[in-house]
Amino acid sequence: MNYEKFYADRVKPMKGSAIREMFKRMQDPQIISLAGGNPAAELFPGDELSKIAGKILMTNPTGALQYGTTDGVPAMKECAKQRANKVGAYSDGDAIIIMTGANQGIDLTAKALINKGDKIIVESPSFIGSLNAFRTYETELVGVSVEDDGMNMDELEAALKNNEDVKMIYTIPTFQNPTGVTMSLEKRQRLIALANQYDVLVLEDNPYGDLRFSGEDVPTLKSMDTEGRVIYAGSFSKILSPGMRLGYLIAAEELIGKIEILKQVNDVHTPVLTQLMCVEFMKKYDIDKYIEKNRALYGKKCAVMLEAMEKYFPKGKVRWTVPDGGIFLWCECPEIEDISVVVDKALEKKVAIVPGSNFAIDMKAPSKQFRLNYSSATPEKIEEGVRRLGEALAEVLA
Amino acid sequence: MNYEKFYADRVKPMKGSAIREMFKRMQDPQIISLAGGNPAAELFPGDELSKIAGKILMTNPTGALQYGTTDGVPAMKECAKQRANKVGAYSDGDAIIIMTGANQGIDLTAKALINKGDKIIVESPSFIGSLNAFRTYETELVGVSVEDDGMNMDELEAALKNNEDVKMIYTIPTFQNPTGVTMSLEKRQRLIALANQYDVLVLEDNPYGDLRFSGEDVPTLKSMDTEGRVIYAGSFSKILSPGMRLGYLIAAEELIGKIEILKQVNDVHTPVLTQLMCVEFMKKYDIDKYIEKNRALYGKKCAVMLEAMEKYFPKGKVRWTVPDGGIFLWCECPEIEDISVVVDKALEKKVAIVPGSNFAIDMKAPSKQFRLNYSSATPEKIEEGVRRLGEALAEVLA
Repeated sequence: MNYEKFYADRVKPMKGSAIREMFKRMQDPQIISLAGGNPAAELFPGDELSKIAGKILMTNPTGALQYGTTDGVPAMKECAKQRANKVGAYSDGDAIIIMTGANQGIDLTAKALINKGDKIIVESPSFIGSLNAFRTYETELVGVSVEDDGMNMDELEAALKNNEDVKMIYTIPTFQNPTGVTMSLEKRQRLIALANQYDVLVLEDNPYGDLRFSGEDVPTLKSMDTEGRVIYAGSFSKILSPGMRLGYLIAAEELIGKIEILKQVNDVHTPVLTQLMCVEFMKKYDIDKYIEKNRALYGKKCAVMLEAMEKYFPKGKVRWTVPDGGIFLWCECPEIEDISVVVDKALEKKVAIVPGSNFAIDMKAPSKQFRLNYSSATPEKIEEGVRRLGEALAEVLA
Repeated sequence: MNYEKFYADRVKPMKGSAIREMFKRMQDPQIISLAGGNPAAELFPGDELSKIAGKILMTNPTGALQYGTTDGVPAMKECAKQRANKVGAYSDGDAIIIMTGANQGIDLTAKALINKGDKIIVESPSFIGSLNAFRTYETELVGVSVEDDGMNMDELEAALKNNEDVKMIYTIPTFQNPTGVTMSLEKRQRLIALANQYDVLVLEDNPYGDLRFSGEDVPTLKSMDTEGRVIYAGSFSKILSPGMRLGYLIAAEELIGKIEILKQVNDVHTPVLTQLMCVEFMKKYDIDKYIEKNRALYGKKCAVMLEAMEKYFPKGKVRWTVPDGGIFLWCECPEIEDISVVVDKALEKKVAIVPGSNFAIDMKAPSKQFRLNYSSATPEKIEEGVRRLGEALAEVLA
């Protein structure tokens, strides 16, 4: 039977293969994956969470297993508020809603705001999960290039001036995915001023903000917002566990109220047990000490990757970003028209990387860039993976 | 700041207050709630799940806490397949995708199929969670009335004949929410024949099918489908735990592939721990024995409610359905133009019920009906709740 005629316009162009292909690569144990966005598993607090989960289900089975409320367990909302207060991301008149991972918050924010043809200004390149979520609402994505200190603000202003129906600016200002760069304070101030001037909303996606291993913290956009324009998406995926799927949105109460309706009809509420586990973990343990361990590990792994790139990449043929935190860095090969040749050759050598086209507004255009992840693999695998990747690059450039 | 101009058309008419109001009522400990859809908490296998969760996190922390795949944990998909095979809901060429509750599957099915103005034929009344999910895609709902043996098939045929752009028929054929009625075999056969004749898809929502306490099982629509038109939504909410948010969709592989893309950008994947807990529970324990306990309890509670209604409701003034399973029954008061008067009076007497308007296509029209739930409250509370409700009805009819 032919299902094509039953599909909604919004999904007809959607292809999931790239993402699924990436996941498949990550499944193959033979392959060194520098492709994914997995946090380091070696630090997961399995023993602590084991005791916590066991106790919750033994002492409060009804609380953990019965239906919950859509906005989240009150104590979990307090945990999200605690994290947000550390970066000034919660203010009076705001509301918090717990999400089944921050990506759900990004998806439902777009669902609440975007009519077909409305525009969202995004960093180019940006996180494929968010871009694809936006695409399912038939939005028009307007790309603004990313420099070493974040979005090009002149391009942003031009994009706001030259486009009607811009509803929102979507940005990952800190340790951006995929580039790893952080937006400077000056640019953040200008972004907020431009959002006010052109009367648009801002979706600040900050899953990596806690993972700084060098340099000074920069204030969140949400902390600079005086008009209630910034919707802040926070996550526990990179500071506790991605598999638990715990994220949150913070914004003006009225906006969160609309988004809560969409969450109600989407998954009713985020599973209660994982929320209660996060609450107990933050009660019993110092999550900042735990995050500090992750920070140190990622700093070390990033250094290993940068050193290996110096050593094994063809001299003068590859440019890359040097992140102060997060889990990604970004490479560009000016002499290579289509990086997919390198991606395929690397895969023959059992190294998985993601081509830049996956993060582009136009996913069909060839790309000179690729993304590398340093949080997941061990230091040894990172060095070996980069060595093989260097071979692949040399062969293509030869 | 005024956010109205930022909202997408799809959410402008959405009001979450009715649902939130119902949840609030269920929170107040003073109130006997016959309003919600909570399964009986007294049977939750807390001790078993406590041991299981503790062991999983102790022995396989990475497996439970790292990112998973969008379609679900393979062993969890096998569990869903086992449940589906019991009712003939899985066939060759089908694929399974695990959902964060069946409601997510219903939401994303509509997202995959519905363009603005496309029509979905639904039972009238039907489950508010699904109707509201459909409304967020600007679908036009076409209602077909529900009789004691399910949808009126002549109305269904007329609806298919007189409406263009019908993409799908949505039905809860077994122990329907809110009416508690079950569609007869003959009507199921005719529904499938009509779907084939008019070339539309069918979304079969079956969260209560395992909860029969009298009468004979009737085959699922999915088991009668020879053309790949039926999308089957299954759930573990009423047979294990709603708070764990575990459901699944089964349909032709191509359809599930499209829906998987939407799940990927929605919550990436369903939390892994809760999936692994369900897998271990089904490995270590006989879930059918556990379901049997629920069945027996619900049969008893339903009998208590029916007896109390005979005893306390004004004689000859109220009609009600007599379910063979599930958790709801449906009452009609022909002499009362707007049941909300009774709902408010009942609330004064600390009994919460849901007015029929919540389940209607036109939620603003006054309703003569209300829904009662008998799975959640204790037998004592059910009798006392019905007694108070009888008083409220008598006072309004006086």
